[in-house]
Amino acid sequence: VKAAFIAGDWGTSRLRLFGCGGDGVVLAKAEGPGIAEAGGRAAEIFAALAADWDANLPALLCGMVGSTIGWREAPYCPCPAAPDAIAQAALRFDAPTSDGGGRDIAIIPGLSCTNASGLFDVMRGEETQLLGALRLKPELAHGRHLFCLPGTHAKWALVEDGVVIRFQTALSGELFALLSQHSVLARGAGAASPAHAAFGAGVAASRNEAGLLHLLFSTRSRQLSGEIPQEEAASYLSGLIVGAEVAAALRLFAPDGPVVLVCAPALAALYEAVLGIHKLSANVLDGDAAVLAGLVFLHTKLFGP
Amino acid sequence: VKAAFIAGDWGTSRLRLFGCGGDGVVLAKAEGPGIAEAGGRAAEIFAALAADWDANLPALLCGMVGSTIGWREAPYCPCPAAPDAIAQAALRFDAPTSDGGGRDIAIIPGLSCTNASGLFDVMRGEETQLLGALRLKPELAHGRHLFCLPGTHAKWALVEDGVVIRFQTALSGELFALLSQHSVLARGAGAASPAHAAFGAGVAASRNEAGLLHLLFSTRSRQLSGEIPQEEAASYLSGLIVGAEVAAALRLFAPDGPVVLVCAPALAALYEAVLGIHKLSANVLDGDAAVLAGLVFLHTKLFGP
Repeated sequence: VKAAFIAGDWGTSRLRLFGCGGDGVVLAKAEGPGIAEAGGRAAEIFAALAADWDANLPALLCGMVGSTIGWREAPYCPCPAAPDAIAQAALRFDAPTSDGGGRDIAIIPGLSCTNASGLFDVMRGEETQLLGALRLKPELAHGRHLFCLPGTHAKWALVEDGVVIRFQTALSGELFALLSQHSVLARGAGAASPAHAAFGAGVAASRNEAGLLHLLFSTRSRQLSGEIPQEEAASYLSGLIVGAEVAAALRLFAPDGPVVLVCAPALAALYEAVLGIHKLSANVLDGDAAVLAGLVFLHTKLFGP
Repeated sequence: VKAAFIAGDWGTSRLRLFGCGGDGVVLAKAEGPGIAEAGGRAAEIFAALAADWDANLPALLCGMVGSTIGWREAPYCPCPAAPDAIAQAALRFDAPTSDGGGRDIAIIPGLSCTNASGLFDVMRGEETQLLGALRLKPELAHGRHLFCLPGTHAKWALVEDGVVIRFQTALSGELFALLSQHSVLARGAGAASPAHAAFGAGVAASRNEAGLLHLLFSTRSRQLSGEIPQEEAASYLSGLIVGAEVAAALRLFAPDGPVVLVCAPALAALYEAVLGIHKLSANVLDGDAAVLAGLVFLHTKLFGP
């Protein structure tokens, strides 16, 4: 089976390329540096990694590759954004290949919106995961669904009949990572787990009207009081942060059905536990599968079946 | 004039020793490493720095020096805590001196309480600043006053007739520092200033019901939209964080008069600006002056005039 196109997920911290058959089956993979590390050398890095594949294969790339610090800037597609509009807003150009020809490149645009707080908001890469989720579970392309894409900058997105209406970014993943690594709060703790009693205690504490800023230090103080074992401190901190994130998102979006979680399984378990406390179920999709399905869908839209 | 005692402020990141006259006038100073760096060598570090002063001078030390990672652990004094109770709970011992004798050491205890959120909370060092503030402005020792001690772990404390009733820790300073240094949010920005329009915009945004987690990313997205100049991004971030902190603290403590700010002048200016938006005035005291005044007061209590 010969590859029909190259699909690429090029985020801040890593690049993953997939040589795909026309049906989207992955035939080969390659990995490279993220955009933050690539600096101005994105074209060279891509050319070197893609050199093994036919020069006439088109490439679709999503993520920070289209930002101001990426390869070329693909302007944001404004919400409400339908799948066709996202595909049409792709930035297309030819990249020179070693045989003197050029390779068709399409950089998928990010989305912009006025979020539920009335503020300007953006995403890059998650729009492709949303498109992939609609392809992996076609029933999600009908009706109103709330998606949550946990991560460094978690995105909550309202999708109606397949159109991204608006979304909101929560800094949960970055906050948890920074506080875990640099603060005294969870020093010496193991990984966060929803199976720890401390996770539930953190979620319960997050519902306090004091707000997250005035609650975070309890991760430390409740170890001193003996209420939280040191080895579960990261679970308590995670419970506080994810608890605050989910409660606020539910206030902002008021979903009337399951929340669609698109991420890695370990992260999904934390969010599913918190949603359960709010008597909401989760519809879980793997984040890696979603981004690939999105790129396959966009290939069909942009380069035909 | 001969020194009458040694006053020491020994926190996580630095040690400052003052040779004081009986009236509290500072006659000499010395600096050393913080407790985090001192490891198990606190006794030696202190002995080396204090060797120049008479072996018969007592020393009073406050801050993380009394924590589990300090020189010796001084158990927390529970709230409500009156000045005399704090003094009496000091941990006293003899430290060997080079002449074969021993120096009187008093480590001031931190305070513990059940905070306004119903959670266990602690402070170490700020209790001495509070005692100093009551000495520098004796009128604060009567009636009900809300104190705010901004910093890495900001403390809001309710003091009634000189007694610390309860307090609450907000992680504002640490959060701002971590996000400024490690995140993309305020990359390339200058220092935070209440004079920047972006500071006011951040405070205004912080009042959104979405909550801080869902608002922090607007520091980045509103630069992309052109609403916030990159060089004022730290001011916007500061406005968001201090705005959220102050609003929550005012809900928790409902002060009916000026808030007493105990900190460095630059930090006081940020808090004073936010309090002004809430139609509250600030009563500002310098944090360094307050800790010294607290140690002078405690010297009188523990070692006589």
